[in-house]
Amino acid sequence: MSREEPLSTRQLRVGIIGAGRIGKVHAETLAFRLPEARTLAIADVNREAAQAVAARCGIPVVTESSAEIFANPEIAAVLICSSTNTHADLIIQAAQAGKHIFCEKPIAHSLSQIDAALAAVEQAGVKLQIGFNRRFDANFARVRQAVESGEIGTPRIMHIVSRDPAPPPISYIRVSGGMFMDMTIHDFDMARFLIGDEVEEVYTAGAVMVDPEIGEAGDLDTALIVLRFRNGVIGTIDNSRQAAYGYDQRVEILGSRGSIATENRYPNQAVVSTATEVRKDLPLNFFMDRYTESYAGEVRAFVRAVCEDRPTPVAGADGRVAVVMGLAARKSYDEHRPVRLDELTDRARSEGQAP
Amino acid sequence: MSREEPLSTRQLRVGIIGAGRIGKVHAETLAFRLPEARTLAIADVNREAAQAVAARCGIPVVTESSAEIFANPEIAAVLICSSTNTHADLIIQAAQAGKHIFCEKPIAHSLSQIDAALAAVEQAGVKLQIGFNRRFDANFARVRQAVESGEIGTPRIMHIVSRDPAPPPISYIRVSGGMFMDMTIHDFDMARFLIGDEVEEVYTAGAVMVDPEIGEAGDLDTALIVLRFRNGVIGTIDNSRQAAYGYDQRVEILGSRGSIATENRYPNQAVVSTATEVRKDLPLNFFMDRYTESYAGEVRAFVRAVCEDRPTPVAGADGRVAVVMGLAARKSYDEHRPVRLDELTDRARSEGQAP
Amino acid sequence: MSREEPLSTRQLRVGIIGAGRIGKVHAETLAFRLPEARTLAIADVNREAAQAVAARCGIPVVTESSAEIFANPEIAAVLICSSTNTHADLIIQAAQAGKHIFCEKPIAHSLSQIDAALAAVEQAGVKLQIGFNRRFDANFARVRQAVESGEIGTPRIMHIVSRDPAPPPISYIRVSGGMFMDMTIHDFDMARFLIGDEVEEVYTAGAVMVDPEIGEAGDLDTALIVLRFRNGVIGTIDNSRQAAYGYDQRVEILGSRGSIATENRYPNQAVVSTATEVRKDLPLNFFMDRYTESYAGEVRAFVRAVCEDRPTPVAGADGRVAVVMGLAARKSYDEHRPVRLDELTDRARSEGQAP
Amino acid sequence: MSREEPLSTRQLRVGIIGAGRIGKVHAETLAFRLPEARTLAIADVNREAAQAVAARCGIPVVTESSAEIFANPEIAAVLICSSTNTHADLIIQAAQAGKHIFCEKPIAHSLSQIDAALAAVEQAGVKLQIGFNRRFDANFARVRQAVESGEIGTPRIMHIVSRDPAPPPISYIRVSGGMFMDMTIHDFDMARFLIGDEVEEVYTAGAVMVDPEIGEAGDLDTALIVLRFRNGVIGTIDNSRQAAYGYDQRVEILGSRGSIATENRYPNQAVVSTATEVRKDLPLNFFMDRYTESYAGEVRAFVRAVCEDRPTPVAGADGRVAVVMGLAARKSYDEHRPVRLDELTDRARSEGQAP
Repeated sequence: MSREEPLSTRQLRVGIIGAGRIGKVHAETLAFRLPEARTLAIADVNREAAQAVAARCGIPVVTESSAEIFANPEIAAVLICSSTNTHADLIIQAAQAGKHIFCEKPIAHSLSQIDAALAAVEQAGVKLQIGFNRRFDANFARVRQAVESGEIGTPRIMHIVSRDPAPPPISYIRVSGGMFMDMTIHDFDMARFLIGDEVEEVYTAGAVMVDPEIGEAGDLDTALIVLRFRNGVIGTIDNSRQAAYGYDQRVEILGSRGSIATENRYPNQAVVSTATEVRKDLPLNFFMDRYTESYAGEVRAFVRAVCEDRPTPVAGADGRVAVVMGLAARKSYDEHRPVRLDELTDRARSEGQAP
Repeated sequence: MSREEPLSTRQLRVGIIGAGRIGKVHAETLAFRLPEARTLAIADVNREAAQAVAARCGIPVVTESSAEIFANPEIAAVLICSSTNTHADLIIQAAQAGKHIFCEKPIAHSLSQIDAALAAVEQAGVKLQIGFNRRFDANFARVRQAVESGEIGTPRIMHIVSRDPAPPPISYIRVSGGMFMDMTIHDFDMARFLIGDEVEEVYTAGAVMVDPEIGEAGDLDTALIVLRFRNGVIGTIDNSRQAAYGYDQRVEILGSRGSIATENRYPNQAVVSTATEVRKDLPLNFFMDRYTESYAGEVRAFVRAVCEDRPTPVAGADGRVAVVMGLAARKSYDEHRPVRLDELTDRARSEGQAP
Repeated sequence: MSREEPLSTRQLRVGIIGAGRIGKVHAETLAFRLPEARTLAIADVNREAAQAVAARCGIPVVTESSAEIFANPEIAAVLICSSTNTHADLIIQAAQAGKHIFCEKPIAHSLSQIDAALAAVEQAGVKLQIGFNRRFDANFARVRQAVESGEIGTPRIMHIVSRDPAPPPISYIRVSGGMFMDMTIHDFDMARFLIGDEVEEVYTAGAVMVDPEIGEAGDLDTALIVLRFRNGVIGTIDNSRQAAYGYDQRVEILGSRGSIATENRYPNQAVVSTATEVRKDLPLNFFMDRYTESYAGEVRAFVRAVCEDRPTPVAGADGRVAVVMGLAARKSYDEHRPVRLDELTDRARSEGQAP
Repeated sequence: MSREEPLSTRQLRVGIIGAGRIGKVHAETLAFRLPEARTLAIADVNREAAQAVAARCGIPVVTESSAEIFANPEIAAVLICSSTNTHADLIIQAAQAGKHIFCEKPIAHSLSQIDAALAAVEQAGVKLQIGFNRRFDANFARVRQAVESGEIGTPRIMHIVSRDPAPPPISYIRVSGGMFMDMTIHDFDMARFLIGDEVEEVYTAGAVMVDPEIGEAGDLDTALIVLRFRNGVIGTIDNSRQAAYGYDQRVEILGSRGSIATENRYPNQAVVSTATEVRKDLPLNFFMDRYTESYAGEVRAFVRAVCEDRPTPVAGADGRVAVVMGLAARKSYDEHRPVRLDELTDRARSEGQAP
């Protein structure tokens, strides 16, 4: 009995666009952890990268052209793992080809592109899931559960700490859309996910403290963002492009009946006591290590949503709101005042187009 | 050999004004932990309260009149532990009587009163220490040491969490000057103490979530205050009048070389594991328990500063700045915008008077 | 390109005997995490179980007969995952067929059977690794590293806590060889691994506290075993068949320059504070969850040892010593006195046979 | 109103014998924390030491002679804080003088001396409390509470870790009665206190690892002692004369419904994260710091027991049992076998005298 035979008639046939770091992670999840899915093809302009992933994961077709994947009638769903600037166009093409879509975040840096992509998805009636993997992390899911179940009562204050071990190359920062778009985007989504409500206003205190070159490239590297939710909850996001001790990812929520707070994850649980200190090893330093299970979780959820014809757990609208929040946070920083999210969306509306 | 004989010619003779909760704590410190000081008299309009403290602490003279203490030529220093509205006047009288002064926070709610008191102190050439006891807490002192010594490099982000177990009576809130003046005042001082620099701007996101009566009394019960320091550090203060699990007092600072964060203090270090959870008892719930040592520490520091003719560790100016920060935080909340501290002090100057 | 084609000429061809819980785990590791190996066949008297594993892991041949696997000339190595009473015979058959062998612990309950199996392995010149997976756990590996590197100086005292969530069925206890053989066997190996030296004497304090039926079946369910190593280190193993809060697996070593201690692993790092307690969720409760990575690690190490023709990290002799320790611990309990390990091995020798 | 006047007619008049480290601690507790007691006299052959304590604590009479204290009819109770070799005689003298007695541990090194002292106490009908202060430590009291209340169900396994930062001088070890008598004595009492039952058998694995001179002086410096209680609980005591990281004092109990474990106490709750590690400062290193509150607690309990005519919380018999355990632990080490406590007491009985 060989692995090539279908395990079930409901096995989802998938194509992957982009064989970079995250494309490889998703390909492995599909190959080794999701018997209910099977990857038929992988596309990357870097053919060698695609071939390496295909070899490791048993993907039969390798191509340089995403069009080939959209044209393949056997493929029911695609995972868009290419660079951000291609996301919106690929979503439109995929939707027009009738494929269900999993797309990495952010959808695009401009709301007009996002709205065009979401319109195409709606018109085609396909499913779309945005890659906010952290919702599937055991820690954040536990916090959400505490809020949802009433374990800590009515939420009042929320804090997210999200710090990277070290800044990305300046070349990346120049095209990434800036810290709010490439990094805080996860925290914007996390805030909404944890509280289960929409943010209506943000205020940003930001600075360049890590590397002056980041400032010269027009970006920040350190920020505190105050959020005010519709339901009255207030909260902060703490971002730094650099934390000497590694990847720092924590949240804390105070509610009327108690609080919940998460700690970082560690490679081991050993404590060493010496003549000078009581110490432990540094926390998991790399987002791939810290969030391994959440990457698998989001793809599993996508596959199941498609197979069982249920809504995806992270909708296109979620992807859009996070970008609006990023734009508002930047506007607050530029104008040194609290900014309401509807300032961005209303302006779009009054001008007869998305901004 | 009796305790009534002087232990040393440098033993400081002290008078205490106010025999309430904090007056009693300071009297005990002077009686039982500071052989270099001796309390000669205690004054309170509630004579019974003063008598009880005197009996416990071996204080020979009990009076209802603070004037009697100021008039006593044997007394070199006074501790002002009466209600806030009396502080400024008592400082002025004490200074005019040539007494060194330890005064509980805040000095007053208005800058003009504070400035009058500080002027009297300066003119008299006496020492003044403000009761920001938390600077003497082992946890916060350790954090300050980490900043000062460079252990965590250059500070970048600071967080203070300061939550009370339960709100005070509405009657107290009506006269306390509000949360920023009766509670956050400690955090404003802590922020300056930890970073070792001045705040130049604040932004407040506040709310009434604990009790609508607090709002009706014109106050907040929940707030996030963003601070921006002159040296570029940004930070937050998280305040709540109510935390179900008790008194929550933590700080965290991110620096260029690492971070330092403190946890709450607990009555014991026992961990119980059962079929449903792994748990420990609640943290120390009462500020008197949590800050016991810091109350002793501040009085010890005052006595030593006077005996050794050195500056007090918490100056009158420190007391003034904390009030300015409280006023600015409230103004930010009222006007829904970031407020620079010099808006308050400049206005005072341009109007030819303190506000 | 299909997964069925060889990835490398050094890819190790493997057969698995036993499709139960642990056989399935190893099959998944070989299929999804070790491109350098490929499973050609799986055998189980329960054909359905073998078929299910084969389907999930892409194993082409399913059989009820281990002999078929030994006879397959393409297969270079076997994993023996069947019940303990079959281990020694299967090792002998595998060795005679020239296969390298990975065998679950314990090898057998009697030293004569073990010695026969080890003799067959030696004669055939094949490699043998015993399934002491915990050596590959990140926590225990970190402790071993602290000892080996001198981080904590010369070891002096060692503690192992090893408690199961709940006792196995009485039917299992009757055939398992007893707690020392089915459960403590891991701790005996861990003690030698961590300290890097041999135990020369044991003393057992044991009891039946969990379930009287366990005592009626001739076994213990609670034990403290004192170990004395040749290098002078003294230590304890703490075993219980039942811990209300779940699977409890910790070690602690005191050395001349410090100590190292490990904590349990938890499904999340969330701490909930309520009006009654500060709590977290229970630790990982199932050995499959707690030791997931260590199961993969031991199979990876075996495959690499075979491919690179190096000694396996857990030798047959290691499997034998752990059984000797188990026999000595039981003898100590029965005779209520410290027992030297050489009492067991010398007796064997003096009687001209293994005991 | 002066401190010299009686606060209450029930104020207990006390004399202290011994003005060394622990005598000073108790004098301070009586002076500053216990208004219901008053120290009238302190005796020490070192008059200067006694004078210093008297000056600090307002004790009117200083003497070199304990007889003077026993002869003082105003004194109702004495605290015996002199060296161990004087305890038994002083207890007898105090009892004969009709004084209630608080005596530091151990009562004596020989059971015959102890029995003579206890007989005198019984004959005189005075109260006796032995200085097992750790029972009054918040951590150990919490553990006892968990056992007593059934919070962790029926106890099954107990562990005590009790390690000193560094060994005492060899000169002290030569007269202290050895580690079991000067250090483990606390742990023997703690074991009985926590479990609430008697130990019937001990087994000792001991070694000299810290300093060969300790071995030459006839003592051990490292030990694991297995305890078996009458109620079936089994446990261990882990002792080391040296722990590089400081004073290590922990206990853990497994019961049928859960476990409770205590951690060390720390001078602060700060955690520092750097590029190399996550660390905290060392635990409280000195027994005076770690057990401050428990020293006050035991004296408070003694004073109240006398004032309210209730039994003392730590009886003379408790002091005797701990010594029997120490003798049994040593005998087990010498004879390399488990030793029942009644071997020591029966031998005494059969020989017609205490050993």
